[in-house]
This record gives sequence, structure tokens and C-alpha cells, in this order.
Amino acid sequence: MNTIKIYHNPDKNTWNTLIQRPATDSFTLKNLVQTVFDKVKKEGDCAIREYTLQFDGVEINNFQVEKQEIHNAHKNLSDELKKAIQQAKKNIYTFHKTQEEEKKVIQTTKGIYCWRESRPIEKIGIYIPGGSAPLFSTVLMLAVPAQIAGCKEVVLCSPPDKNGNIHPAILYSASLTGITQIYKIGGIQAIAAMTFGTNTIPKVYKIFGPGNQYVTTAKQYAQELGIAIDMPAGPSEVLVIADKFANPAFIAADLLAQAEHGADSQVILLTDSLYMLEQVQKEILQQLKDIPRHALVKKALENSMLIYFNTLKTCFEFSNHYAPEHLIISIRGYRKWISYIENAGSVFLGKYTCETAGDYASGTNHTLPTAGYAKMYSGVSLDSFIKKITFQHISKKGLLNLGNTLQIMAENENLVAHKNAVTIRLNTIKKI
Amino acid sequence: MNTIKIYHNPDKNTWNTLIQRPATDSFTLKNLVQTVFDKVKKEGDCAIREYTLQFDGVEINNFQVEKQEIHNAHKNLSDELKKAIQQAKKNIYTFHKTQEEEKKVIQTTKGIYCWRESRPIEKIGIYIPGGSAPLFSTVLMLAVPAQIAGCKEVVLCSPPDKNGNIHPAILYSASLTGITQIYKIGGIQAIAAMTFGTNTIPKVYKIFGPGNQYVTTAKQYAQELGIAIDMPAGPSEVLVIADKFANPAFIAADLLAQAEHGADSQVILLTDSLYMLEQVQKEILQQLKDIPRHALVKKALENSMLIYFNTLKTCFEFSNHYAPEHLIISIRGYRKWISYIENAGSVFLGKYTCETAGDYASGTNHTLPTAGYAKMYSGVSLDSFIKKITFQHISKKGLLNLGNTLQIMAENENLVAHKNAVTIRLNTIKKI
Repeated sequence: MNTIKIYHNPDKNTWNTLIQRPATDSFTLKNLVQTVFDKVKKEGDCAIREYTLQFDGVEINNFQVEKQEIHNAHKNLSDELKKAIQQAKKNIYTFHKTQEEEKKVIQTTKGIYCWRESRPIEKIGIYIPGGSAPLFSTVLMLAVPAQIAGCKEVVLCSPPDKNGNIHPAILYSASLTGITQIYKIGGIQAIAAMTFGTNTIPKVYKIFGPGNQYVTTAKQYAQELGIAIDMPAGPSEVLVIADKFANPAFIAADLLAQAEHGADSQVILLTDSLYMLEQVQKEILQQLKDIPRHALVKKALENSMLIYFNTLKTCFEFSNHYAPEHLIISIRGYRKWISYIENAGSVFLGKYTCETAGDYASGTNHTLPTAGYAKMYSGVSLDSFIKKITFQHISKKGLLNLGNTLQIMAENENLVAHKNAVTIRLNTIKKI
Repeated sequence: MNTIKIYHNPDKNTWNTLIQRPATDSFTLKNLVQTVFDKVKKEGDCAIREYTLQFDGVEINNFQVEKQEIHNAHKNLSDELKKAIQQAKKNIYTFHKTQEEEKKVIQTTKGIYCWRESRPIEKIGIYIPGGSAPLFSTVLMLAVPAQIAGCKEVVLCSPPDKNGNIHPAILYSASLTGITQIYKIGGIQAIAAMTFGTNTIPKVYKIFGPGNQYVTTAKQYAQELGIAIDMPAGPSEVLVIADKFANPAFIAADLLAQAEHGADSQVILLTDSLYMLEQVQKEILQQLKDIPRHALVKKALENSMLIYFNTLKTCFEFSNHYAPEHLIISIRGYRKWISYIENAGSVFLGKYTCETAGDYASGTNHTLPTAGYAKMYSGVSLDSFIKKITFQHISKKGLLNLGNTLQIMAENENLVAHKNAVTIRLNTIKKI
């Protein structure tokens, strides 16, 4: 525990260094990604089969998950877990359903009516990583808003395990949210398949979901090729701001929870109480003993910081500069600090509001901007699955009211044909 | 006028070919973009000065526009144009102001409160092309929502003319919308300057605005480097769906207006009336004579199509497949067709609703997805200038209600520390 870094009132000219995330080397992966994409584009399913054998170590002939496998998942999952997934789904649905925008027709000038209507993105792809943690919660976070949006074609790709299976909790969550097209494909080849389409896997318009650096680089490359993605991704992170009234055991537990995501995770505590800083430090040591992913958590703590600032105001200033994915506020009278928050993915207010709630089941989305992207990106929401199309209708009277302005502006931009489209209509109206 | 292509009931298996846009070669520009970016990153203002001399043919020592120049723009612009710009600004403001989201606190489970709050993107950059058409309307379209959002730092870059000036209508529009930082910089070097920042030009988090292929490729590269952009861009386009009751002269005028944007623009008419197709064709010939940008418009018409389909339903199906930036519906009883529209940037309904209105002053935004991107992207709106941060507060009772679900889900994802963060709180609550 010499590893976690401790700072006292770090000078502002060091902040740009302090907010730097653990380095990733996505650029060096790009060659591999291009190779895989090229091959998938050219050889389709054959290439997928080859890469699945090479990267996942299993031979798959039929990528699509069969109805029987989904049926078995329903049967084999414990009732306890199924109920938990159902409650999470209900809360996520409730919260995202309120994000629907009501149609408002605005008369900007007499006779000029403007409004927006939402339409689903027709075809979307969801990537769910495999590995030690079966991220069925991410299925809910992406498929529930897709279902509310009304996306017609929702494709889910997830790597098969050594026996050629996908974890039953992923299959259960997918079928619960209406996904019928589930494919046993992982990594770069999955992203390539959804980018180009193959005989088996449909091409989609937008790709969602987390992944390791291979998947992240592949999604970036897909974006260069014209596919939309949810957002650029980096390792997960949390920043806690606490005063002397916080509970150090709770904070330590939150920091460790974040640290267990991966060796490249980052956790930060900001506090105006030296006492709190020390107590949290002690609690981390204490709780660390009981955590199974020990080595990984310790590695993540090496990237991490406990920082003392003289004032809470400076804590918020630093936090905005860092722009954390998750921001936990454990301050007495936290309400008055909300307006200080400028950059964050998702905010957890008060002692009992643990990040775990937002990760799983409170209703908010857990697909959030990392690596400082909270400065310009929102987390995933219903908005991520729709387009808002603007509409307008102009009456004769409306065109008479606005026509002059339109003609003058078009003329001054040297766009004579733009002007003509107005003039020809005005002339007709005036003749009537 | 042999050039515009005419199709009758084209077979569905030809649609993928028909919807292809005129080719662009952004990939070959990337080397130049990288060179310019590298030099700007290394040499800052010196590099900008050099490139401005090289590409814009003018030596600029002070990039920032002085107060006196803005003052002169106010003085030198005609009252007529100033009033037109003011009316446009008012309508754009009115429409975008209604896009503000009201805060709604949702109780997803008893004691679990979730909501979203909007925050402005702190630093944004606006690029306005120079050249023959001074796009002051684009200044309004980008700066007005930025102002409503409350973006703190709004930087505008636009290339200087041969005398080292920016068009007064651009300066006037910028100052009307509260922009104080205007720089005489264009092309790739402007995008690079806003990406890295220099001694003179601030680094921004998100870059907006149209441009030629150099600017478009530069924006794509900026995105690879971690800067957000408004959307991927391509040449402008319009698709008109008309029945036999439409006015062919109006439609021809709309098609020609779009065609005058550039030689790579594309205009399309879909109709279920052979008579209408012929009349529009005649009208184009007729009106073409009076348009100054003759050669350019003719070139655009070579990329263009008039298509007859047996039914209006097939017209809408094709249109959704094409996903036009601008969609004009000139059909009697157009209301019942609105629900058929799935993919479009902005829709113009009815005879008198010319695209020019949306381009300038009706209130909707004219920065829209081209090249088929309307399948997954919305046009620019207030949303483009803000992030929506999710918040949650959980009471003791709330955690008691949800705690079990959280623990079960975390355990099944093998995230023990996530579970601990819940358990440690539940134990404290139960002890009280």
C-alpha cells in the first residue's frame, strides 16, 4: 500500500499531468485491426470462422445461437438471478422511457411551423465481451433503450467460451429484451462482421458496447469507415469527493469496486479533510484483504490518487478538469454542490448511493464516457438509439412573412437559385 | 439536359447502386492533413502563419479579429441585411430554445431517485468556410444554440481573403451571437489549431462546421485524436417526393437551389406521376438559363436523377433507403405520409415550404447529415452543444429495496468488490 499516490494541495500547473489516464497503445493495434477487417470484408463467414478458431480457440460452424440454447438458458439460470435481472430491466426501462421527447410544434413566425420527431436507428449492433465476467448487465443497458426506441434489427455479438457457448445470463437478458439475433463471435472479427455484413451476420448502422483494446480500436476503425459508434472508450474510472462527515469504509469499498474492473482502471479520492484521507487509506488496506482479484486491484491502485485540497470548491474544480466517468459525492448538504458539477458521466449523491446501483439496476445507464470524454460526450441514453428529424410546414402567409428575409440572405450568400425558389413561390402567391 | 438521369420503376436490386453518392477521395488527402497537423502541433502560430501564406496567399501577423474590424462590419453592412440576419437569429433562437430539457426526477423504485441535468460543452470551435459564398447563415446555425447551451468559450475560425479580411456579414453574425474570439485562419491549419491549441488560438473540445474535403478530412483526423466533431460530412443533397398535384416550377427551383451548392451536390425527384416528371424536367431546362453558376449546376445535375415509381409508397421506401439530407414532400394530403419517413435530416412539408427557408431563417438547423448518415445521425441541435449527465440519490429505504438485486447481479458477474460496496452499506443500515 505504498503504491497509491497521495497529494496535498497539488499546484494547478501540475493538474494537466495529474489528470492523465494510464496510457493505452491503440495505435499499434491498428494494423492488426485493418488486416482482420480486410479479410472479413473479402472472405465473410470463412474469415470469421478462422479468426474464432485462432483467437477464441474454438471451432464454430453455426454462429447464430439457436432457440434451444436460449430455452436452456431460461431453464438453467437460478430464479434468484432471473428475478434480479427482471428488477434491473424494469428500472432501466422506467428511467429510459421518460427520455422520450414529446412532439412540440413551434410557430417561430406567424405561418412557420417547426418541430422534431424521433425515429429509431433501424439496425444496431451490440457487442458484449466474454471472459471471466459475463456482462449480462450491459445487455440490459443497451437492449432496453433499443427496444424503447423501436430499433427494428438488433444484433448481439459475444465471443464463445472454449465449449462454443455464450453465458446463459447473457442469453437470458438478451431474450428478455427482445433480441433474437445472437451470434457467437468476439473481438475484432465481430466488429468487422457488423461493419460489412456477411452471409450470416447483418451489417448495422451503429455499434454499441464495451470491450478490450482490440474491440475499442476496431470500433474506432469502423467509425472511420462510416459506421456510427456509441462513444470512444477507455478504462473505467471513479472520482469520489468526500468531506469529514463521509463514511470512510463506504468510500474505500467504492474505490475498490472500481479498481476490480481492470489493472488499467483509475480511482481517485478528493477531500478537504486530512482525517478522511487517512481513514480511507486505512480502510482500503483493510478491505483489500478480502478481495479475490487481488493482484489486479493492486495494479489499478498504482494508477490511483488520494488528494487533499484546502477547500471543497477546489475539489470540484479539479474534478471538472478530470471529467470522471463516475462521480461520487459524499458531502453533507451535497445538494448545494450539484451546480458545481460541469463534467462527469454519472453522479452518485449521498452516503448510500453506491456506484454499484448505477452499474446494475437503479435505472441509469452504465455505458458512460471515460478518459475525459465527459467533457464533450453524454453517456448512452435513449437518444443514442434514435435520430431526431426536424420538420417544417410554411403556409402562404408564413412565406409572405419570411420571404423577404430569405431572399436577402440568399442573395448576400451569392446563392441566386436559393433566392429563386422563394421568389417563384412569392410571385404565385401574390398573383392569387 | 441529356445529362440528368431518368429511371422508370428501377428494380430493387439496383437501389444500392442508385443511392451511391458522387465519390470523394478523402483518403488520399489524409497524408497532407497529417503533415499539417504535425507541423501545427510542433510549431504553433508560426506554422499557421506559413500555411496561411501558402494556402490563402496572404500574410497575416495578427490572426485575431480586432474590435475595430467588428465595429466596421456593423457600420458597413446594409440595414436590410442586418434586419434579415436579426429575424433569422430570432427564429433559430426560438426553435432551439424549446429543445432545452426539463429536469424530471424519476423514482424507479421506492427510495431510488434518478434524473438528468444538462451542462454546456465548455469550449467549442466553429469553422466557417470562405470563398465565393460568405456563409454567415452557418454562423447563426452554430453560434445560436451554443449561446443557448451556455458554452463558455466559443472560437470561430474562417479563412482570410486576399486582403486579410473576413466578410463583414460573418463578423456581424458572430458578434450578434456573442462570439468574441474570431480568427482569420482557414483550412486544415484551422482545424489543427483548434485541436492542439497554439499561443493565440485556444484548444477546444468539439469542432463544428462545414468545409471542403480538406476541412472534412481534417475534422475526421481531429476526431481520431480525441476531439469531438458535429458529424461526418459529405456534399449537400435534396430529395423531392411529388405527386401530380405538385407545382413543377417550384420543384425545379428547389432542385436547382440544391444543385448550385457545388458540382458534387446531388438532387433527386421521386414521383408517381409521369406527367410531373416531364414537367419538372422542362422547368429545370427553362430556369437553368437564368442561373449564374451555370457550369457548376450542370455538373451537379449529372449526378442527379428523376425517378418514376408506380406508387408513392415505393417513393418513400426508396427515400428511406437513400436517407436524404433534405427531404421535400410536395404531395396533396402530405400529413398521412409523415409516419412513412424513417431516415432524413430535415423535412419540408407542402408546396410553399421551400428548402431555402430551413437553410436560412425558419428556425430549424441547416447543419444536417449527408451521404446517408441520416440513417444514424441527427442534425445539429441544442443537444450537440451539451452533455446530459445522469444523477441519482438513494435513500436507506431505497438501498434496502434494491440491495438484494445488486448483490446477486454483482456476484454473478464475478465482481465481488462491487457486491461489497452494497453489503457494507446494508450492514450499517440494518445495525441502526
